[in-house]
Amino acid sequence: MTSPSEGTVCIFPLPKLPVVAAGDDLASLIVDAYRKASWEPKHHDVLVITSKVVSRAQGRFVDLQTVHPDKQAIEIANEIGKDPRLVALVLAESSLVARKAPGILITKHHLGLVSANAGIDQSNALPQHAEQGTGPWVLLLPQEPDRAARQIGQKLEQEFGVQIAVIISDSLGRPFRVGTVGSAIGVYGVPAISDQRGKADLFGRPLEHTITAFADQIAASADMVAGQAAEGRAVVVVRGMEYPWSPHAPCSELIRPTKGDLFL
Amino acid sequence: MTSPSEGTVCIFPLPKLPVVAAGDDLASLIVDAYRKASWEPKHHDVLVITSKVVSRAQGRFVDLQTVHPDKQAIEIANEIGKDPRLVALVLAESSLVARKAPGILITKHHLGLVSANAGIDQSNALPQHAEQGTGPWVLLLPQEPDRAARQIGQKLEQEFGVQIAVIISDSLGRPFRVGTVGSAIGVYGVPAISDQRGKADLFGRPLEHTITAFADQIAASADMVAGQAAEGRAVVVVRGMEYPWSPHAPCSELIRPTKGDLFL
Repeated sequence: MTSPSEGTVCIFPLPKLPVVAAGDDLASLIVDAYRKASWEPKHHDVLVITSKVVSRAQGRFVDLQTVHPDKQAIEIANEIGKDPRLVALVLAESSLVARKAPGILITKHHLGLVSANAGIDQSNALPQHAEQGTGPWVLLLPQEPDRAARQIGQKLEQEFGVQIAVIISDSLGRPFRVGTVGSAIGVYGVPAISDQRGKADLFGRPLEHTITAFADQIAASADMVAGQAAEGRAVVVVRGMEYPWSPHAPCSELIRPTKGDLFL
Repeated sequence: MTSPSEGTVCIFPLPKLPVVAAGDDLASLIVDAYRKASWEPKHHDVLVITSKVVSRAQGRFVDLQTVHPDKQAIEIANEIGKDPRLVALVLAESSLVARKAPGILITKHHLGLVSANAGIDQSNALPQHAEQGTGPWVLLLPQEPDRAARQIGQKLEQEFGVQIAVIISDSLGRPFRVGTVGSAIGVYGVPAISDQRGKADLFGRPLEHTITAFADQIAASADMVAGQAAEGRAVVVVRGMEYPWSPHAPCSELIRPTKGDLFL
């Protein structure tokens, strides 16, 4: 025997999703993608959706030509050598500047994410019907990603009659380590964290690593598979995870409070 | 149809691994576990092995009664309220202290990992034949985890005739975010990072997130599945990933140099 069944989690991309445009109903596009592929979701599948397509559907495009940076943005832009219009957008999206250095601006986004440029993306950021002479365009992170996840999960349940969890993910850099990892920025149905405090180890002593970043690990596994896929595979299905159905667990449970974070 | 095949990655724990004791030949125990389960590994399966069992096999147990803290360890221990013997071990395992606060000691381990207590584990740390009156026992991170990974991968290839990659993983906390994620501390066969610089986005512009923490994402996906399993499942198989066979990619590629890390 070469492949087991019990306890197996499988991860695969959802094909047939078109390029998403501003104003699109992303939940309906995903339902259509299932129908076109003749697929059906299974009970407690977890759909991991890249933030990019959620932002595109929400129309979170900004034409940098329309941004008028204030004095603070111009000062920081001069100091670190960045486009002052981009810096102005980053500051508007953020609650604090964590670090700045030549070419680098790391902030805490209003969603709680600490990342470069407040997660503003300059690739894959062209609106579908951008007019001549506009741009460069950038794409902001989605608004209310927990709510966006819930809308998609509830639409899928309505269409297919099974509970489907949704994670909105983004690829985040980290301190200390090279490379990005998929992380959860919005959740519906799955718990954001798994708290095992009180459980015992093999020898009956309390476990040490007692809080696991449950939704982040699912997002990382989906990013791993999406990275293998051809361009444009923005939705990944994670099948076979067991978890307590958690329609009200906010993704903010993954955010360490600023006060008490030794690295902010 | 409810389940696709192409591009699917599946993740499942390897059963039948016994509790590992100091001096055990871990590679042979894993081969035995395959045989007992009547399983065979497949070409380019990735085995993710928790650092705990590698440390146990290497006999990285320390009886705190045998540790004699020096002046620096005693001073730090008094300052943060920790056992000075544990602090002495943490310092001996580390190249620098990143942060300290009451109850918290975050260092950069000689392997390059920035984590609490230099990854020293106080749960699951009891040697199999600990004598009465000894301990408390702790378990240090493995020595030369790349080499440990290679030995296991090469033994599996020798036994089963297929190339098997190995990742030694540990659950690491992170700044900014709550909860631990599985991360790679040793690799064999898989690249530690995936560098996509030069690739273009959907619209022909250069991609932004160009270096992915490839081995970390695999480790996170395995940790996700291990966390679901009953206690004692220390080896997880990741099947279906495509990657360039990389027998010489060191895990240190995932470590950001201390100089230039804005958060150290």
